[in-house]
Amino acid sequence: MTDENSWTGEDVLDESARHARKMAKKKAARDRMMLTRNGQKGLIIVHTGPGKGKSSSGFGMILRCVAHGMPCAVIQFIKGAWDTGERRLLTTHFEDLCQFHAMGEGFTWETQDRARDIAAARAGWEKAKELIREPKVRFVLLDEINIALRYDYLDIAEVVEFLVTEKPAMTHVCLTGRNAQPELIEAADLVTEMAVVKHPFRAGIKAQAGVEF
Amino acid sequence: MTDENSWTGEDVLDESARHARKMAKKKAARDRMMLTRNGQKGLIIVHTGPGKGKSSSGFGMILRCVAHGMPCAVIQFIKGAWDTGERRLLTTHFEDLCQFHAMGEGFTWETQDRARDIAAARAGWEKAKELIREPKVRFVLLDEINIALRYDYLDIAEVVEFLVTEKPAMTHVCLTGRNAQPELIEAADLVTEMAVVKHPFRAGIKAQAGVEF
Repeated sequence: MTDENSWTGEDVLDESARHARKMAKKKAARDRMMLTRNGQKGLIIVHTGPGKGKSSSGFGMILRCVAHGMPCAVIQFIKGAWDTGERRLLTTHFEDLCQFHAMGEGFTWETQDRARDIAAARAGWEKAKELIREPKVRFVLLDEINIALRYDYLDIAEVVEFLVTEKPAMTHVCLTGRNAQPELIEAADLVTEMAVVKHPFRAGIKAQAGVEF
Repeated sequence: MTDENSWTGEDVLDESARHARKMAKKKAARDRMMLTRNGQKGLIIVHTGPGKGKSSSGFGMILRCVAHGMPCAVIQFIKGAWDTGERRLLTTHFEDLCQFHAMGEGFTWETQDRARDIAAARAGWEKAKELIREPKVRFVLLDEINIALRYDYLDIAEVVEFLVTEKPAMTHVCLTGRNAQPELIEAADLVTEMAVVKHPFRAGIKAQAGVEF
């Protein structure tokens, strides 16, 4: 700990870094404003609600990006323990365009270890910030992050603040999962609620390849 | 035209074909019942509502199938004139596992030619029936078919009757588009309504690569 009233070389560097960060935020805000006028903008996209299609349409957008040659990234916050088709496809065919990081250890009712879940969610969020800041990455999918936010594994205010102030102007970020927090919906540009009209699990049908995973 | 009271060789063949079709339907119904007891079943899936994610999550499921090595097919009923990421990705990388047929000529308010739209929709539906009947095809996406049904380009009773009686027991069929007909929802196993909570078009943002196409 240094004396609060003295200045060291490190303090000067910190101050300089703070200034650079502050100016970067101003530039990002200005870029966002200019781009919006041209009808283009990196969007904060939220897929929520109890129905199907939240993750699969996020994945569909990732693959649209791949098809257009746009570098992108997926961070799975919760389903990491599943051998999903998404993971297999992206890591087999498109590693050059799309990074894939599975941070979760499976659903929380499978791990029953809150400390481990929190650590996995924090690690996922650190990776997410790194990828969103990366200028060449055009689209980042934060799959099931809403679950981590709902259980307070991550702080909603921190996540929203980062997205609003540090997301590069043209980068799209898509956040999926049930029970999206009101603060996130407020900050988002595009919010879709997937509602269940009918679901086959209720008729004794289990999760099937292609449809659910 | 032959006399209704006489029998020709062709009539016998017709009768034999009718019997085979009837028995195939009975077998399909029995297979469906048995499989349902095991918790597996080819589903009739509907994505409807005004929100985002209807087509992209259908496309996400197609790519899950590809990832699992399940042969599948896409028929685009309406967006055929778009150079979509979906089309590019499937025809560039996965032609061996996924057939892609774009039947539509673009949205109806672009063509303004009802006869041509009807012809395109009918051709799409004929192709759809052929692919759904194909035993090795495990998942068929009928993208935006609800639009064709809504404008009566296709007959809803015919489509539902075909899905209920002729779809092989383990084949999934996903039908997307706004305003799904009540008869289709009634026949379906899995129905999701995508609702708009917030949409950036309202704020002057236009359709963007990766997100919308």
